[in-house]
Amino acid sequence: MPADTKNLMLFAGRSHPELAEEVAKHLDVTLTPQSVYDFANGEIFVRFEESVRGSDAFVIQSHCAPINKWLMEQLLMVDALKRASAERITVIMPFYAYSRQDKKHRGREPISARLVADLFKTAGADRIMTIDLHTAQIQGFFDGPVDHLFAQSLLAEYVGGKYGDADITVVSPDAGRTKLAEKWADHLRGRPIAFIHKTRDPLRPNEVVANRVVGEVRGRTCVVIDDMIDTGGTIAKAVRQMLDEGAEDVVIAATHGVLSNRATDLLAGSGAREVIVTNTLPIPADRRFPQLTVLSIAPLLARAIHEVFEHGSVTSLFDGQA
Amino acid sequence: MPADTKNLMLFAGRSHPELAEEVAKHLDVTLTPQSVYDFANGEIFVRFEESVRGSDAFVIQSHCAPINKWLMEQLLMVDALKRASAERITVIMPFYAYSRQDKKHRGREPISARLVADLFKTAGADRIMTIDLHTAQIQGFFDGPVDHLFAQSLLAEYVGGKYGDADITVVSPDAGRTKLAEKWADHLRGRPIAFIHKTRDPLRPNEVVANRVVGEVRGRTCVVIDDMIDTGGTIAKAVRQMLDEGAEDVVIAATHGVLSNRATDLLAGSGAREVIVTNTLPIPADRRFPQLTVLSIAPLLARAIHEVFEHGSVTSLFDGQA
Amino acid sequence: MPADTKNLMLFAGRSHPELAEEVAKHLDVTLTPQSVYDFANGEIFVRFEESVRGSDAFVIQSHCAPINKWLMEQLLMVDALKRASAERITVIMPFYAYSRQDKKHRGREPISARLVADLFKTAGADRIMTIDLHTAQIQGFFDGPVDHLFAQSLLAEYVGGKYGDADITVVSPDAGRTKLAEKWADHLRGRPIAFIHKTRDPLRPNEVVANRVVGEVRGRTCVVIDDMIDTGGTIAKAVRQMLDEGAEDVVIAATHGVLSNRATDLLAGSGAREVIVTNTLPIPADRRFPQLTVLSIAPLLARAIHEVFEHGSVTSLFDGQA
Amino acid sequence: MPADTKNLMLFAGRSHPELAEEVAKHLDVTLTPQSVYDFANGEIFVRFEESVRGSDAFVIQSHCAPINKWLMEQLLMVDALKRASAERITVIMPFYAYSRQDKKHRGREPISARLVADLFKTAGADRIMTIDLHTAQIQGFFDGPVDHLFAQSLLAEYVGGKYGDADITVVSPDAGRTKLAEKWADHLRGRPIAFIHKTRDPLRPNEVVANRVVGEVRGRTCVVIDDMIDTGGTIAKAVRQMLDEGAEDVVIAATHGVLSNRATDLLAGSGAREVIVTNTLPIPADRRFPQLTVLSIAPLLARAIHEVFEHGSVTSLFDGQA
Amino acid sequence: MPADTKNLMLFAGRSHPELAEEVAKHLDVTLTPQSVYDFANGEIFVRFEESVRGSDAFVIQSHCAPINKWLMEQLLMVDALKRASAERITVIMPFYAYSRQDKKHRGREPISARLVADLFKTAGADRIMTIDLHTAQIQGFFDGPVDHLFAQSLLAEYVGGKYGDADITVVSPDAGRTKLAEKWADHLRGRPIAFIHKTRDPLRPNEVVANRVVGEVRGRTCVVIDDMIDTGGTIAKAVRQMLDEGAEDVVIAATHGVLSNRATDLLAGSGAREVIVTNTLPIPADRRFPQLTVLSIAPLLARAIHEVFEHGSVTSLFDGQA
Amino acid sequence: MPADTKNLMLFAGRSHPELAEEVAKHLDVTLTPQSVYDFANGEIFVRFEESVRGSDAFVIQSHCAPINKWLMEQLLMVDALKRASAERITVIMPFYAYSRQDKKHRGREPISARLVADLFKTAGADRIMTIDLHTAQIQGFFDGPVDHLFAQSLLAEYVGGKYGDADITVVSPDAGRTKLAEKWADHLRGRPIAFIHKTRDPLRPNEVVANRVVGEVRGRTCVVIDDMIDTGGTIAKAVRQMLDEGAEDVVIAATHGVLSNRATDLLAGSGAREVIVTNTLPIPADRRFPQLTVLSIAPLLARAIHEVFEHGSVTSLFDGQA
Repeated sequence: MPADTKNLMLFAGRSHPELAEEVAKHLDVTLTPQSVYDFANGEIFVRFEESVRGSDAFVIQSHCAPINKWLMEQLLMVDALKRASAERITVIMPFYAYSRQDKKHRGREPISARLVADLFKTAGADRIMTIDLHTAQIQGFFDGPVDHLFAQSLLAEYVGGKYGDADITVVSPDAGRTKLAEKWADHLRGRPIAFIHKTRDPLRPNEVVANRVVGEVRGRTCVVIDDMIDTGGTIAKAVRQMLDEGAEDVVIAATHGVLSNRATDLLAGSGAREVIVTNTLPIPADRRFPQLTVLSIAPLLARAIHEVFEHGSVTSLFDGQA
Repeated sequence: MPADTKNLMLFAGRSHPELAEEVAKHLDVTLTPQSVYDFANGEIFVRFEESVRGSDAFVIQSHCAPINKWLMEQLLMVDALKRASAERITVIMPFYAYSRQDKKHRGREPISARLVADLFKTAGADRIMTIDLHTAQIQGFFDGPVDHLFAQSLLAEYVGGKYGDADITVVSPDAGRTKLAEKWADHLRGRPIAFIHKTRDPLRPNEVVANRVVGEVRGRTCVVIDDMIDTGGTIAKAVRQMLDEGAEDVVIAATHGVLSNRATDLLAGSGAREVIVTNTLPIPADRRFPQLTVLSIAPLLARAIHEVFEHGSVTSLFDGQA
Repeated sequence: MPADTKNLMLFAGRSHPELAEEVAKHLDVTLTPQSVYDFANGEIFVRFEESVRGSDAFVIQSHCAPINKWLMEQLLMVDALKRASAERITVIMPFYAYSRQDKKHRGREPISARLVADLFKTAGADRIMTIDLHTAQIQGFFDGPVDHLFAQSLLAEYVGGKYGDADITVVSPDAGRTKLAEKWADHLRGRPIAFIHKTRDPLRPNEVVANRVVGEVRGRTCVVIDDMIDTGGTIAKAVRQMLDEGAEDVVIAATHGVLSNRATDLLAGSGAREVIVTNTLPIPADRRFPQLTVLSIAPLLARAIHEVFEHGSVTSLFDGQA
Repeated sequence: MPADTKNLMLFAGRSHPELAEEVAKHLDVTLTPQSVYDFANGEIFVRFEESVRGSDAFVIQSHCAPINKWLMEQLLMVDALKRASAERITVIMPFYAYSRQDKKHRGREPISARLVADLFKTAGADRIMTIDLHTAQIQGFFDGPVDHLFAQSLLAEYVGGKYGDADITVVSPDAGRTKLAEKWADHLRGRPIAFIHKTRDPLRPNEVVANRVVGEVRGRTCVVIDDMIDTGGTIAKAVRQMLDEGAEDVVIAATHGVLSNRATDLLAGSGAREVIVTNTLPIPADRRFPQLTVLSIAPLLARAIHEVFEHGSVTSLFDGQA
Repeated sequence: MPADTKNLMLFAGRSHPELAEEVAKHLDVTLTPQSVYDFANGEIFVRFEESVRGSDAFVIQSHCAPINKWLMEQLLMVDALKRASAERITVIMPFYAYSRQDKKHRGREPISARLVADLFKTAGADRIMTIDLHTAQIQGFFDGPVDHLFAQSLLAEYVGGKYGDADITVVSPDAGRTKLAEKWADHLRGRPIAFIHKTRDPLRPNEVVANRVVGEVRGRTCVVIDDMIDTGGTIAKAVRQMLDEGAEDVVIAATHGVLSNRATDLLAGSGAREVIVTNTLPIPADRRFPQLTVLSIAPLLARAIHEVFEHGSVTSLFDGQA
Repeated sequence: MPADTKNLMLFAGRSHPELAEEVAKHLDVTLTPQSVYDFANGEIFVRFEESVRGSDAFVIQSHCAPINKWLMEQLLMVDALKRASAERITVIMPFYAYSRQDKKHRGREPISARLVADLFKTAGADRIMTIDLHTAQIQGFFDGPVDHLFAQSLLAEYVGGKYGDADITVVSPDAGRTKLAEKWADHLRGRPIAFIHKTRDPLRPNEVVANRVVGEVRGRTCVVIDDMIDTGGTIAKAVRQMLDEGAEDVVIAATHGVLSNRATDLLAGSGAREVIVTNTLPIPADRRFPQLTVLSIAPLLARAIHEVFEHGSVTSLFDGQA
């Protein structure tokens, strides 16, 4: 009767090797060697080069473009782990693909974020680890434990350290993020908040008629916060409006730097003093620009993996900001 | 080879017979007769008095107090329908129990709203019909079709008709409902919005330090909106604050009138000119008060049931307000 | 590669704290601290105050009135444990709610006992521990291991010790418990048995026409046995009939003291010399009466939990009385 | 948009062709032609000769010896129907295999009756139809509708018609069937009942020490009832004991004539005046004997199938005897 | 009680609109209008423009490159249909993605073809329709009906019509397709067959040492058959070898024209007289070449859809070639 | 917090005790004692005599005739293990029942091999271990890990050792096994291969018109290989044809010796010099004949069980021959 020991193994898809390597270094493990490549018609093949039997497997993949490919790659990795008798499989998605489609906005749409959770369950995932979900309710889409880590604290700490002496107003770029702005305001020890009210014609609901700032911004350092920056359009417009209404300075902070299309140009030319994101998604050199600061979430991920493996508490990493 | 006809049957738990009867009348059907009673130790017994084989069954129950009892009663009714060969079972919960526990606020909590969805799935529910969910993401908790009806339009129409000539500001009682306020503002053809910013000490996150109104309320008719009124405490405080800051009038509108504890007293004495709710939950005579207006959602429910039964489109009942 | 140690954690709902404390003491553990309370509208909130990650969790709840509330509370606790990464979750229900509705007595009824098993499975229960099921077949309602403990032995031992010298007849209060009476008779080293034959008019099947004792009771000490005493009506009538037919003494023994409605009065005034139950359900002071003896099943539960945790055999606790 | 018509199709395994043919005749349909045979190593092959797409399929199989073969054949038929797009699949097992193993009698046993229900669910069965289950709780083992038909009424009617003028005592051959005896007594308009009390040494629980008749049998026509007669040993002994204790006549009635091993000899020579069973199981010529009467359950099955197909009520066939 | 009518609706992903249109035309229906587009980060959005409630939905998508994107698009369409209450959802994949990864070739690989089946099941697919699977066993990967259509007959008919008078040898390009070659030989009314035996060094199993033709090819018209042509490398080499060994002519026939990488060049320059494929996958103009013939499978698909909708028999479309 | 130790336990059905004993001996464990017997009507009963709680359970059963009985016995053993809290259950089927029915050959057939996988999953199997599947795709029928061991290497080594100096041609008895022949040819360090081409009339597809050998056999030692020998008819005919076409010697090698019907006679009189099989299935004395050699797979099974238990790699036992 041997004692049942277990083995932490870390696996990485091909989307963001730097992050995976950094996490591995923090954990003092090596990424499990694997063969993974595309067939001529785009089908992905994967095989692990070492036995994974009985392991506590963590599979990290950043859901950047081509996002459906990286999703499928991670699903195939989970399937391979299940069939090779891994003891427990934790899917790590620093950015959760399709998290914005978390409800039917109108009829006859998918709820894609739920579908993603179900696909991983079906492939064999026992648990999910993710960071700053678009809405916290997505936790409930997965039938099992979800470790939901908070990088907003990381951002808030950075902003507090660097701009803490200024007259900060925390600004939500739209009505839906006002709650998040409130959390930031508390975290920065009591600051006023503002948001941009978009008015729409009810007959043409997708068309914004006007933007109106609600709250005080004149003469203040505006910290525009969000969970992600995709095309950068909304954010860049918000910066412009802040400055137009007399803001002294504008700083942008968001967890996920999706930076699609012309985001780099828009942000670089927006007039913002600094744009702060994390490395949940890879940001290639040609998308970087002088005002951009990228904070690493690798230490946070590594600590969470360690706690999960050792049966410690991850709640302490949540920072009351759920 | 007979044509496969089907049969709409409507079933009602014991929580809110008036609503069920009203829906039945609109549909021109009678509620299926049943024996349902409590055993001495509180266990519920149910038996339907007519064959339900092959029927298209709709089971309506309002989740008011004692809420766990009415939940269980509805689950037992679904189980009985499944075992008696109903063809399709639609669970109607005008107010979705436990919808506020739709995520883990901190670690080691249930996600009760997901659990409720799963319990109904397990009992045999094929689909859910509900009204104004606390968060729309709850749709994604159920593994099947959810018809999510919107009574906010009903409320907005009423308010627009009665107060449309006044200088309205739509007010969200906290940061989390600002998005909903924005929808109201659009629906009322472009009104300003405001919200109450609650500041907290990060070291004591559950304790509100101060409330600050963000946006214009002085001299205006403030329409405070929300999805539900439970104990009425937050709403009553909001009314007080509006009036203190110079609002001319305050009107309250919310879909679900939970009205727990001293809600009736708090609202009646709050200074609000009118409090408008719907009858998704029963409001007994002793909880009513002069300023209270109760709109009926029975016509909306009846229309939705009819469309589901006839394979029509329910999306048209969503009013673009999802 | 650390050895995979595990951790027994005991959790208790609010229905019967004395029993939970007593079990904890026998196991030499403390109940896991938790926040659990009702919201104003009756929704239950629960959060555990310590990390449960990787634990071997045992969740005890007695299903007394308000029975649907305690059921739901236990389901929510299981959901919270699942989402907080407990390794294994054992649901302990000393009295299994809805066990009498274990079949359809007629058409269009639920099979509530099966539903209860499925609800716990859905919430995340890995296994069930329970005591003296109304019918042993309920074991098969759960898709997983069920540890079915027998307190009848405890009762029989007590009766044997105290009344063993008398001329005992074991009496089943109705035809359905005759098999149980036979087991008691064997356990008491060979005693005669009797039962009460209820005659019904086939045209009015729910109405008993007459009760007839089948078997010898005159001049004997009648031990009336059952799995539970609910309203006490049937049992009290059985006592009366025994005495009328010349029984010298009547003793009542049943595992579950539900004691609903006027049970206390009926039993106290029934003429029975002693009424013996266990503490699977709480028996508040105002339901106790002089002839009542309550045996504790805490040692039995503690032993079973210990064996389950240590991978020992629970079968030895079954006493051949399955 | 064609109307969605449906099609009743009846399928039969090879175990009891006479019964299937008789049911088909009552329904005025023909059994669907099929190829079904054994491969040399015992594997069963099945193919239906007509399209079953969209049909309402009923698959009848009697679970007689070789019982595991007929079980597997029925499972394969269900799998073939599922994959060939039958609309709904009803499994008919007039005698439910493994129904006696409906609980763990002691530890480390299967609950075979639950396993059988799960196997059919997995293969694709939507519903089950069966007759006189060993215990009614088995209904709850299947996750779906179970139509539980009662042939005991058929037997009781026959006995009432033929022996109604005699002084009948209904006798249960052991303590576990006393409840059934009570139902018979009611059905025969109020007769006394008796049962045979088996005493066991608690140290050797499988060994019966003595049989004792509880109740009046002297000078009476004893109707010994049971759900099935397997080897006939218990029943034959019961007859002997009745006669020894002065019974005038003994008649035996049981739904399922399993008649294993030497049952025919034992029953033929038991002294019973008549042995009445139904044809839920085939009874080949060499197992028949002069005192044996076989009633056909084909009309009952045909009526139930007809009601299920037409969405009528099957409850009316239950006769209040559930 | 209205008759339950149903409605065939055809949906198409964006991968191969020509095929979908052609099928629609054959069925005399129009493709359901929909909004489907990519977000900036590659996430796909889909919404149907008409009510799909109660419909019999068929969703066609060709799995060509970018294959993971089209897979995900089809999954999202199925999810949207499920949540919008389609009555039944049939997934049509003329070419089944990942069908070559239908087993673990060595340890620690996924079984991707099974995963694909499970993903569609999870999303809500009730059934699958597909053409010429790489191996027929993949039918068994889906838990439900699979309509497996055969386009090889189409190809064989074409070849028989055009080259039937020549001295044909049917050639399998490797040992694994010999069985398929045998079927062709029969279909062409008895022709000899040959195959190419690849020898490998057991120490370097992925490296082919030599190709040897087994069977007669000299002076004959060699019809090289396969289920798909991907990069064309193996096939082009086979053509070369046939010609080297004295074949008079070489014709190539395969169902799925994947035509990846330099396939067009390789085939065009291979020396083959004609290359025949179907349009299960789109073949853009720049991949076409003079010797290429593309047969349409739209009529076959349309016929199968019609039969499924009308509950007819699809087996008759299988042509005994399963 | 005790370390979580685990316990390898080996269980054997009654079909092939010699193999189970041999495996146990290699593992240095004893088979877990059990009571297992048939009831009079053929129902199987099983109970384990020792606690299995927390064990790593391996359940071995050979699927020989009566094959459905042994299948059911193994399912019941798995159910009993699940309900008795075994930690993990591995089903070992050296020969996988119904593996030839791994697809629908024509419409309206079961896919029996998938059904078998699902039945074991339902009963509670966590993983499957099997040897030389009829087609490797069957691995994908089970939703979990499948350890697929290869005994063909064992056979090839034996043949290579004994006949390695002869001029071997590896012969596939039909077109479907040509791939397997190719693997043998490689394993024997590069030998030619041949196969028998069966021609059929397309109008009578089940009837073979003629057999034609493709490849060189004259003057050579022909090694006819297959995965199983059932009735021996095809193989015996192949031997005859080899000899007729001038083969010097014929040797037969197959993993599974089903040896049904007259297989023994056919093979003994076929003219083959040696027939080599393994003991995956029992071969009773009266089925043996002078030319038969039986190799034991017990060492292979024991090694695989050991690796699974110790979390070692089983892939190394696959030998690249997947």
